[in-house]
Amino acid sequence: MKAFVTGGAGFIGSSLVDRLLADGHDVVAYDNFSTGRREFVNAALAHPRFTLVEGDTLNLPALTAAMAGCDVVFHLAANADVRFGTEHPKKDLEQNTIATFHVLEAMRANGIKRIAFASTGSVYGEAYVFPTPEDAPFPLQTSLYGASKLAGEGLITAYGSGFGFEGCIFRFVSILGERYTHGHVLDFYRNLRQDSTRLTVLGNGKQRKSYLYIGDCLDAMVLAMEKTRRTIEIYNLGTSEYVEVNDSIGWICEQLGVTPAIAYTGGDRGWVGDNPFIFLDNAKIRALGWTPKLTIRDGVLRTLEYLQRNPALLEARA
Amino acid sequence: MKAFVTGGAGFIGSSLVDRLLADGHDVVAYDNFSTGRREFVNAALAHPRFTLVEGDTLNLPALTAAMAGCDVVFHLAANADVRFGTEHPKKDLEQNTIATFHVLEAMRANGIKRIAFASTGSVYGEAYVFPTPEDAPFPLQTSLYGASKLAGEGLITAYGSGFGFEGCIFRFVSILGERYTHGHVLDFYRNLRQDSTRLTVLGNGKQRKSYLYIGDCLDAMVLAMEKTRRTIEIYNLGTSEYVEVNDSIGWICEQLGVTPAIAYTGGDRGWVGDNPFIFLDNAKIRALGWTPKLTIRDGVLRTLEYLQRNPALLEARA
Repeated sequence: MKAFVTGGAGFIGSSLVDRLLADGHDVVAYDNFSTGRREFVNAALAHPRFTLVEGDTLNLPALTAAMAGCDVVFHLAANADVRFGTEHPKKDLEQNTIATFHVLEAMRANGIKRIAFASTGSVYGEAYVFPTPEDAPFPLQTSLYGASKLAGEGLITAYGSGFGFEGCIFRFVSILGERYTHGHVLDFYRNLRQDSTRLTVLGNGKQRKSYLYIGDCLDAMVLAMEKTRRTIEIYNLGTSEYVEVNDSIGWICEQLGVTPAIAYTGGDRGWVGDNPFIFLDNAKIRALGWTPKLTIRDGVLRTLEYLQRNPALLEARA
Repeated sequence: MKAFVTGGAGFIGSSLVDRLLADGHDVVAYDNFSTGRREFVNAALAHPRFTLVEGDTLNLPALTAAMAGCDVVFHLAANADVRFGTEHPKKDLEQNTIATFHVLEAMRANGIKRIAFASTGSVYGEAYVFPTPEDAPFPLQTSLYGASKLAGEGLITAYGSGFGFEGCIFRFVSILGERYTHGHVLDFYRNLRQDSTRLTVLGNGKQRKSYLYIGDCLDAMVLAMEKTRRTIEIYNLGTSEYVEVNDSIGWICEQLGVTPAIAYTGGDRGWVGDNPFIFLDNAKIRALGWTPKLTIRDGVLRTLEYLQRNPALLEARA
């Protein structure tokens, strides 16, 4: 199999590249390095079955040319920033919705019909069924990020119906682990390195969230794609548990040996569009035989240890 | 109130313009005349409170300028062609998704927060709950048209959450009545005028569909917008009944006094992505006090009579 991975130098993308190479596949990674990092593909670049193409998903001719000869596309390139969507609404539209349209059109031009898409649990908006199943009630979007990913899902399922595309849409919770470059573990660690005596937490700290370790995420993606033929399947990807933000802060502080005074900005959410409770029903992916190996606590601690070994990531843009 | 109506020279848009003028409002219609028709706004043009701006929703600066001073936007401009989406996938993306983004950005630039949006029952894909409520299970899209409207809905609800936008999203069934310019009544009438002895019907004729008369549609839109403040509400707009395509053919043939031999192309649907059963739950809009005045049969016959009086529409592009 020859796989095309958009966002192949990013956190999840580069991890998937390594996994696919290890599984014996040929891999083409496509990345514009806006948030992807060269050190994440250094190991892959030494591999004879790996090709790196520097390019943007908004450049349809370049994307189409780079995809030639591939059998399956893992579309992971995205603006993954949920929080600041209202500061630049066009970014989610372009980098998520229009980019996904380009990926689909490049596939069509190349006669490729198999796709895996990194969507998000944010498409459920503020869900009111927990754990939230894939066929939850039709949601209202609460973030431009979620709206742009929902649009991508709609395009992919319409291409399934109209052009016979097949594959999987994965609705991720937040993913943790090695090569993690943005999110609460990085934010808290960065702040505590600067001042270990105090920590400001957005909201009241009681937001309940679910997280998944990157290794478990990749296991699920590879398994689901193997099992899916002739349909577009949607899978929630998350652990069977959730934690409070305060739980995660406790683990991080314990690991760092610090006891900061914690100041809460207040309210039941961190920012406009933040979701105070995220907990996805993972019964569908578990029914394929998958089960997560790491708890959320393990995932948080592995992420923290990784950041401690790679402090340069604390200065990263994303 | 000063209302801005995109697609204001189209079937539903021009009918809404006339209604809003009659209700005492100022109205700006914005239309690129790709499918809109000048004769539909001739009466409005004689009105002192009406302004017509010829422009494209893809031209954001022009759209923004035209919208200045308005209080509410009725966004009806769209590529409304469901059936041929796979022949030009970019059309739905541009004219529906990106155009809706432009409308929202133009509103934001002008400080306008009230919006009414013409969405579609097609966003339910192939529903499996009937009648289909607004909070039906999370659907898979089966047409590029539905996908593009779903993307528009997602953007609008995200602007509600992120920027305090308010208003209504209307999920229409097919609308019938005066100024109707495309759909099955026109197709069947055009074909029977050419040859009244035979009629070809896509599918098996047993597709069950719901329709709504334009006057009832406008009543519902105006009422729902009056009642909606500080939230984005989604309303299905359809009658409380559905009919078979064969029923509609029977009424049309009876009215025309013809008895064609009917040839079915076969299968349970008219084309790839056609939906063999559309029947929306209208309890939410009825709870506001609305009730449709015309049956589907009445709507079909009024449409046919209108087309008989206006045969030039049979030659129209759309």
